[in-house]
Amino acid sequence: MPDTPAEADTAIDMESWVCPAPLRDSPNIVMGHGGGGAMSAELIEHLFLPAFGRAAEAGMGDSAVLDVGNVRLAFSTDSFVVKPLSFPGGTIGDLAVNGTVNDLAMAGARPLVMSTAFILEEGTSLDDLARVAQAVGTAAMAAGVKLVTGDTKVVDAGHGDGVYINTAGIGLIDERADIRPQRATEGDVVIVSGDIGVHGVAVMSCREGLEFGTTVASDTAPLHGLVAAMIDTGADIHALRDPTRGGVAATLNEIAKTADVGISLDERTFPIPAEVRDACGLLGLDPLYVANEGKLLAFVAPTEADRVLTAMRAHPLGAHATVIGRCVAEHPKMVSAKTALGGTRVVDLPIGEQLPRIC
Amino acid sequence: MPDTPAEADTAIDMESWVCPAPLRDSPNIVMGHGGGGAMSAELIEHLFLPAFGRAAEAGMGDSAVLDVGNVRLAFSTDSFVVKPLSFPGGTIGDLAVNGTVNDLAMAGARPLVMSTAFILEEGTSLDDLARVAQAVGTAAMAAGVKLVTGDTKVVDAGHGDGVYINTAGIGLIDERADIRPQRATEGDVVIVSGDIGVHGVAVMSCREGLEFGTTVASDTAPLHGLVAAMIDTGADIHALRDPTRGGVAATLNEIAKTADVGISLDERTFPIPAEVRDACGLLGLDPLYVANEGKLLAFVAPTEADRVLTAMRAHPLGAHATVIGRCVAEHPKMVSAKTALGGTRVVDLPIGEQLPRIC
Repeated sequence: MPDTPAEADTAIDMESWVCPAPLRDSPNIVMGHGGGGAMSAELIEHLFLPAFGRAAEAGMGDSAVLDVGNVRLAFSTDSFVVKPLSFPGGTIGDLAVNGTVNDLAMAGARPLVMSTAFILEEGTSLDDLARVAQAVGTAAMAAGVKLVTGDTKVVDAGHGDGVYINTAGIGLIDERADIRPQRATEGDVVIVSGDIGVHGVAVMSCREGLEFGTTVASDTAPLHGLVAAMIDTGADIHALRDPTRGGVAATLNEIAKTADVGISLDERTFPIPAEVRDACGLLGLDPLYVANEGKLLAFVAPTEADRVLTAMRAHPLGAHATVIGRCVAEHPKMVSAKTALGGTRVVDLPIGEQLPRIC
Repeated sequence: MPDTPAEADTAIDMESWVCPAPLRDSPNIVMGHGGGGAMSAELIEHLFLPAFGRAAEAGMGDSAVLDVGNVRLAFSTDSFVVKPLSFPGGTIGDLAVNGTVNDLAMAGARPLVMSTAFILEEGTSLDDLARVAQAVGTAAMAAGVKLVTGDTKVVDAGHGDGVYINTAGIGLIDERADIRPQRATEGDVVIVSGDIGVHGVAVMSCREGLEFGTTVASDTAPLHGLVAAMIDTGADIHALRDPTRGGVAATLNEIAKTADVGISLDERTFPIPAEVRDACGLLGLDPLYVANEGKLLAFVAPTEADRVLTAMRAHPLGAHATVIGRCVAEHPKMVSAKTALGGTRVVDLPIGEQLPRIC
């Protein structure tokens, strides 16, 4: 194995690199590249993966699986740049812990350890930072994850937004679990663990210039306990994913594409609280595209759906779990929804993002 | 194990939290809190650790050690906010990979996998981003580490500085190694692997408003191969650390404090290139406090020093390895240096940082 840069292969020839077609609309980064939709996917596919070359493994997914010694580990990272730092129901600190815990949980892993890396803006008050750091500590204790290593950098005033946090986590994958988006298959029932659209609406409700009255609080929560309860039923969970940026719509589109199945939803079954529906009406948003931070989507065989649903509903974070659709042979790689009026609409992958800086 | 926030213990009572004395000089974050010196240490000790409470394990060091199944893993993270993004000898992409590889190597680990998380500023050119991403890929291939998971966020134009990168890595610790700062002990020889002060001078030489002519290029490099060669000698390496932010002075002060030993250096043995000495003279800096990104400090028993030095000098990244001091019983927790004129001076832990945004 070479260990000096001089021995490295060149990933792509940068002299002849031309920004590829799907990225060409703008020669620059735009907010949508961070939205978790089609533009994010294009940035990964057409810029990061070619540039990383043979150093990149697999699809650079939400969570990587690592076989080492006699254990199977999940490994995941996320940065958090939510604005504002505090919002009804949580802070950037809760999100940073729960976001990574959930990415690990979606591979069937129990979180073990986490790193926390802060990028602080010069001039940020120590009181504000202490409040965020305490939210990190409280959320980590709640999730049973140890904070074992970290880093702090400071950038000049005016650059940054107070606090950016990156977390990376390692989890131990349950031996009984083989949970991957590729395993979603025709006939599978699609379950959502509870109300959708809540986190995005909570953050927007207190954003500068947009304040509106709502009682909606972020759903930020660690989901590994709920996942463990689902695995404990003995059911074979095919796929799990938490619908964060880009919401349920983006997540289901990704799974449909990865697993090469169609997904057919029924709008009448979507658990959307009235406050979320009202706020989305006000802002011109579709709740299906709004971020969640404490919900999961599960794919299981129809014969096992009842027992999984029962276990989910017995857990505080899955009390409102419900079936919202099925995997179908028709329209592979696409998501459709039966409307309340009896029609059918395509549920597209969002291009950029409806709500920037939501996590 | 509780898994809902409601069940969590409270780490500290924020209502009654008062910014503690060592942080009280400024109620806000200043650049020095990111410098890797005394202010960084105070921020960790008096703000992060109390706020994290029982979720924090050990000292939140550069690299954590994790026993899982039948393997011992190292786990580390770093964010990179260097300004400018490219400098003689490297880019933020090289630093981001090599920095985390080196943190793992300092625990005697071979890097296995790495996460890459980008925080991009709206308006950054895709060409610039592609160049940085290619540097990440090339450095990862050179270090033999796989990029297995990632994240991309975008922040508004004017916030951020083009590209911030966080990497986290997992490495497999060599079974023969027990390398910890605590093991540095009286009598140990202190070895540096090569020329010091190079990276900091290279970055400063091209910083806006400070351009000066120099041929110094950053020493950014992955050090795990050099460490493997040292372990392969069969010598018992007591402690290793890469002297990045805060330079050799900050790193040795940390080890002296952690291991409760004194460290006595001899200035005449410091390998400082003439160009670094000249540039530091111009900028009013002490090379001992300037960051390195491809050097390590090793602590070994005097009986094993020769064989370790021979192995280091046979490796391209250790060709100029040399002994610069010893651990002594006198002045525990302190670092001293014999000067060229025969006197002795205290080598203090820097307070903030001489050179901000250097990595």
